[in-house]
Amino acid sequence: MARNTQVSADHNAPPITQILAQFVAHHPSRGWSDAVDHEAHRTFLNWLGCAVGASRHEAADAALAAVQMLQPSRQAGVLGRKTADGQACKVDMASAALINGITSHTFDFDDTHLKTIIHPAGPVASAILALAEGTCLDVTGTARLGGRAITGRELIDALVIGIDVSCRVGNAMYPDHYDRGWHITGSTGTLGAAAACARLLQLDVHQAAMALGIAASQPIGMREQFGSMTKPFHPGGAARAGLMSALLASQGFTASPKAIEAPRGMVQTLSTKCDWNEITHELGQRFEISFNSYKPFACGIVIHPSIDACAQLKAQGVKPEDVERIALKVHSLVLELTGKKEPQDGLQAKFSVYHGCVAGLSMGQATEDEYHDAFVTRPDNVALRRKVVATVDDSIDEASADVTAFLKDGRQIHVFVQHAIGSLENPMTDAMLEGKFHGLADPVLGTEKTSALITSAWKLGQSANLRELMSLSF
Amino acid sequence: MARNTQVSADHNAPPITQILAQFVAHHPSRGWSDAVDHEAHRTFLNWLGCAVGASRHEAADAALAAVQMLQPSRQAGVLGRKTADGQACKVDMASAALINGITSHTFDFDDTHLKTIIHPAGPVASAILALAEGTCLDVTGTARLGGRAITGRELIDALVIGIDVSCRVGNAMYPDHYDRGWHITGSTGTLGAAAACARLLQLDVHQAAMALGIAASQPIGMREQFGSMTKPFHPGGAARAGLMSALLASQGFTASPKAIEAPRGMVQTLSTKCDWNEITHELGQRFEISFNSYKPFACGIVIHPSIDACAQLKAQGVKPEDVERIALKVHSLVLELTGKKEPQDGLQAKFSVYHGCVAGLSMGQATEDEYHDAFVTRPDNVALRRKVVATVDDSIDEASADVTAFLKDGRQIHVFVQHAIGSLENPMTDAMLEGKFHGLADPVLGTEKTSALITSAWKLGQSANLRELMSLSF
Repeated sequence: MARNTQVSADHNAPPITQILAQFVAHHPSRGWSDAVDHEAHRTFLNWLGCAVGASRHEAADAALAAVQMLQPSRQAGVLGRKTADGQACKVDMASAALINGITSHTFDFDDTHLKTIIHPAGPVASAILALAEGTCLDVTGTARLGGRAITGRELIDALVIGIDVSCRVGNAMYPDHYDRGWHITGSTGTLGAAAACARLLQLDVHQAAMALGIAASQPIGMREQFGSMTKPFHPGGAARAGLMSALLASQGFTASPKAIEAPRGMVQTLSTKCDWNEITHELGQRFEISFNSYKPFACGIVIHPSIDACAQLKAQGVKPEDVERIALKVHSLVLELTGKKEPQDGLQAKFSVYHGCVAGLSMGQATEDEYHDAFVTRPDNVALRRKVVATVDDSIDEASADVTAFLKDGRQIHVFVQHAIGSLENPMTDAMLEGKFHGLADPVLGTEKTSALITSAWKLGQSANLRELMSLSF
Repeated sequence: MARNTQVSADHNAPPITQILAQFVAHHPSRGWSDAVDHEAHRTFLNWLGCAVGASRHEAADAALAAVQMLQPSRQAGVLGRKTADGQACKVDMASAALINGITSHTFDFDDTHLKTIIHPAGPVASAILALAEGTCLDVTGTARLGGRAITGRELIDALVIGIDVSCRVGNAMYPDHYDRGWHITGSTGTLGAAAACARLLQLDVHQAAMALGIAASQPIGMREQFGSMTKPFHPGGAARAGLMSALLASQGFTASPKAIEAPRGMVQTLSTKCDWNEITHELGQRFEISFNSYKPFACGIVIHPSIDACAQLKAQGVKPEDVERIALKVHSLVLELTGKKEPQDGLQAKFSVYHGCVAGLSMGQATEDEYHDAFVTRPDNVALRRKVVATVDDSIDEASADVTAFLKDGRQIHVFVQHAIGSLENPMTDAMLEGKFHGLADPVLGTEKTSALITSAWKLGQSANLRELMSLSF
């Protein structure tokens, strides 16, 4: 029987759905600084490399096999994959958004909006690239939407706007929403993907509000899934759901015009903290993509300062065989989250700051290669790992690490990393991003094609169409 | 930067995901009473009629148009729809699950598990019928899965099991989860659909657990959407997501084996109330489908006793033109939820107990016909509506109504309805369900085909394949 229940609710929220729809539909193309536009290209490049790099992972195999059961049309490419006959592997655009979203997060190597721990590109970029391609590449390879060619500029515009929407909604709910159990990348990502696709489809304000509204009913992702394939499914599912929300809205499907902010709408249902100001303040002036960061190392971010410090030791000439002991001082949280002393395989090693030091000192990096089981269990690496002695020092920030190498010849070499490479204060350079991209994509595409793809991605904002980019992605 | 947060959590939940997976994979076929099996047929029939009946609604048009943008394969039918050339309208099975789920809930006329207000058939039946059909009807019209024909028995088994899973998880979270803002039909429906599809695919316990796990990250639906097309999208989206979760699991995609019950899993993230006993108690012995109910009237359930009472007045010979006044006594909640005195159109009339009395008294029913704008605004109906005088009496249960007709000739006729027709205590008979089905499907299929479809649906559990049923559904 119907019940009459009262749950505390904010009935005075600003019209968030309408405000965001207005922003999506009317913010000017390239209506931001050159720095923001360059950051968008960095975000896109980093996302693309991650997606191509993981395209042959077993999670991609399983997702593609499931999608093939739908006998999909060949609208949009699964990045990095070819079919048996050497052609680009293509599926319907919604499924392409799903799979590319999965692969872009499979290595946990994608971008991070540090304020919310959202990985924003996965849902947004996966949706818009598939949508642009899926709306029919004509015989010249030009994507057309209603007869109109999609330009690289439109893609970059949609990326900036979509990421702004998901991260602002994330800001409004974080940390309560995350602490409750939501994987915030997927739960806010559906909105970001819907916003970006609405922009690309040139929906008007009403339709854009409907797209956001439909998406608001589809948050995806519980944190319990961390460690399973369903974790990367979250951005993939968000990309797919956001894309479909925009398509539905374009065909007249309706949603509540207050779906995001109403008392029984998305934000109040998913979070006790609902700071609307985080969504509206400086909207269209400050862009959250400015605060995006990129991981140099393929593991949890608390290990990065220690890896960075050990890589600096290597750069200073310290060799593994010279080392008697590595004294590592870090915040207690680092050992709490990543204190695994004797990791038995690559996955466990991702939770070992000790192994991170080995990777940094012996290889100067920590890519997927340094997390292969064989590398983790190699006797010399096991021996070196046992020479790392970690102690807790809570006067050191979580984002820092203090490392001293005690060498067999009696020398001591000290490195203190305040902000690890990849942090906002010490970002990866463009050249570093290119190096990371090569590490991910070379094994899939070969070095030459990877170099051409990097060049194409850097100039995306000036591209008249997506032909070159897509032709290089397989 | 990573944070160290503590939110209260139950770390001692029983292994719910595993327990349910075991139930899904191993509960015997037809492992329940004849009464349960008959209720499953009633549930299926009612769902089918609702889906066919709303198949030409503009929500179906919009959803189908969006799906067509994916250029889907023709795997499974959109119930009740033909293409321009007179063929059954078919799309890929995931999209068919989506659209049939939408149409089955569009009129708000589908089944209700009263304990939780879940509409359980929409997500579950939509998913399994599309899956069964989508796995390839061969040239003889037989659905095959891995070479095996899908029988009607398998469909009914999957329906009972899927509905049991969604309603039990609903029982565990209701009412907190609903009060928080979740449309519980969509949020638990994904699990039910995944369970049912896992059963149909004959997944083993491990794969069934993975299917449930993948689904656990995809709850759909906010109550703010009530009144928009996104409300019926919820069961449709849940059907689609559950079907895909099972397909993914069948291809080796992984999820947390504790995705439902873990501290950061689905139930604890979505609800403060987490009564695990509701899921495990008498699992495999008591079946929640036994507590399913069917609406005789196409409006909110609190109006039903008043409509029922007025229909009884009509049956006793009371004519609208004889009436001076209708005195209606109901619980305060009835007027709070449905007290609209002067509804201006069909949608508003659904929230008017006054209009409900008009429908009952003049037509003896309240189908979609009685909620057409033209019927609502017809002068004689408006005049009759103004003769209904409602008063609050909280000594009367919410599920009851007390109606007295004061006639122009001085007579008074009194009817008290304790339990309205359609309630658990006073269920619709099979003949009434058939009448409801005809009312919904006749305008779409014609009376003759509708009668044949009803006959086919009643004997589904004995059907060797789905050929006849599907051939009659368009």
